[in-house]
Amino acid sequence: MEIKPLQSLKPLTSLKSHKTFEGLTQFWEHDSISTGTKMKFSTFLPRGPVRGALIWLSGLTCTDENFITKAGAQKYLSAAGLMVICPDTSPRGLQLPAEHDAYDFGSGASFYVNATTPGYRDHYQMESYIVSELHELVQTQFGVSKDRISLSGHSMGGHGALTLGLRHPEKFQTISAFSPIVNPVRAPWGIKAFEGYFGSGSGEGAKHDATELILSGAKHPKEILIDQGLADEFFEKQLMTANFTAACRSKNQPLAVNLREGYDHSYYFISTFIENHVKFHASNL
Amino acid sequence: MEIKPLQSLKPLTSLKSHKTFEGLTQFWEHDSISTGTKMKFSTFLPRGPVRGALIWLSGLTCTDENFITKAGAQKYLSAAGLMVICPDTSPRGLQLPAEHDAYDFGSGASFYVNATTPGYRDHYQMESYIVSELHELVQTQFGVSKDRISLSGHSMGGHGALTLGLRHPEKFQTISAFSPIVNPVRAPWGIKAFEGYFGSGSGEGAKHDATELILSGAKHPKEILIDQGLADEFFEKQLMTANFTAACRSKNQPLAVNLREGYDHSYYFISTFIENHVKFHASNL
Repeated sequence: MEIKPLQSLKPLTSLKSHKTFEGLTQFWEHDSISTGTKMKFSTFLPRGPVRGALIWLSGLTCTDENFITKAGAQKYLSAAGLMVICPDTSPRGLQLPAEHDAYDFGSGASFYVNATTPGYRDHYQMESYIVSELHELVQTQFGVSKDRISLSGHSMGGHGALTLGLRHPEKFQTISAFSPIVNPVRAPWGIKAFEGYFGSGSGEGAKHDATELILSGAKHPKEILIDQGLADEFFEKQLMTANFTAACRSKNQPLAVNLREGYDHSYYFISTFIENHVKFHASNL
Repeated sequence: MEIKPLQSLKPLTSLKSHKTFEGLTQFWEHDSISTGTKMKFSTFLPRGPVRGALIWLSGLTCTDENFITKAGAQKYLSAAGLMVICPDTSPRGLQLPAEHDAYDFGSGASFYVNATTPGYRDHYQMESYIVSELHELVQTQFGVSKDRISLSGHSMGGHGALTLGLRHPEKFQTISAFSPIVNPVRAPWGIKAFEGYFGSGSGEGAKHDATELILSGAKHPKEILIDQGLADEFFEKQLMTANFTAACRSKNQPLAVNLREGYDHSYYFISTFIENHVKFHASNL
């Protein structure tokens, strides 16, 4: 998958800054080249040298604020010397057809793809935004080396972490996910979103489906880590972890899946196990 | 200060439940005897035996949700075997004079007193609600022994923790606070609230002011713990930690104040130091 290099990055505007675990939790806005809109993101920077960066992709209806306020990750990032950067889940401030009609398509629901349908193709370029623009921004604005950037996310953002990590394995040292949508071409959320972003019958969806990517030969050199709650209301119908597990087994993609009894789809689940994910990424950065 | 015993507690309605750090984060609603309204609160219950309870009082504009979603306390509560219970910051669903006109009076801003002004006296009985009703509910509904209940809070809730703990020292084993309003009779927030809840010139405010309580002889048998950020925008004008420190010193009230360089008034500050507060309470329960 080719993503063209960026011409230049425009300066960041700092919106808020809060000292946290001796480091800084911050909120930013910038003019995105990829989306042609202003984009917001949050960061946590540990005190002292930054050893690497974790890019966190959030789920449906989330913004740049959910992870940084609810996951309780700062303590572990601080201990590991890692920064995190949490982009918004879609462009904002637009009025595209059906963009604000539902929680699972359009605003707050980009699915981290480069859309090809009219209107959306001009702004919903979220794959480029993450893989090229944010990836470069982490290096130029925060001084992180390009071989020390990893990717994680939750639900739709778990789908984003797996698919972007498998489509661009050279760009992300490790990938992990909480409650990911692993087979969106078979899930109601994914079917709807891919039709909206790629049109009907395009066949493009399979290229953005973690399970299909593995089956068609995509591979990440490092083990992939997934945590999935067994009391997650979306487990069977939308997430379908077992399909990805089977695909990885058949193609020898290293994978560790932790199925967690009694845990649901919420940030209470993420907060419980985020320490393991931070340590997983830190051990590879 | 006399708070009359409750006749009977009505059953709780469970609204949501999320497994967290092997325990349960839960949201509840009940018909409050003290306020004559439905009241919401959140809890975290560790897995296994509950050694004691921390009652957490939140600040202006907060609800029962802020602490339980943002403080990251579940990890430490789980390790200590403590539950937390976080009440809402005022009655809801009423239409009293000026109740919803400002962020610092009425809804979301009870200051944890028993109001005496018309309308408010019928519902804003938050001291009774915390000290009598919730204190009993923790025992009857969650099986906590009455001599294993402590009190903490943030900002207006820090004021609540200090004043309720000093007015009813027999009911709370230990008290602590983040960024408390320690001298509300001299702070714009406190002056406005006490006039609204007690009327002009009542003199009642001093009985609900932590610094004035200490100066007039109130005492808690255990050391009080306070954390205060030095980059807190409200530090000098509204919080005035030094007044409480001086009062405690003059009256030999044991007190530990941690002034934290660079930290502000937010939950990012609380999340950084909540572990210390949980351990402080746990060591006394």
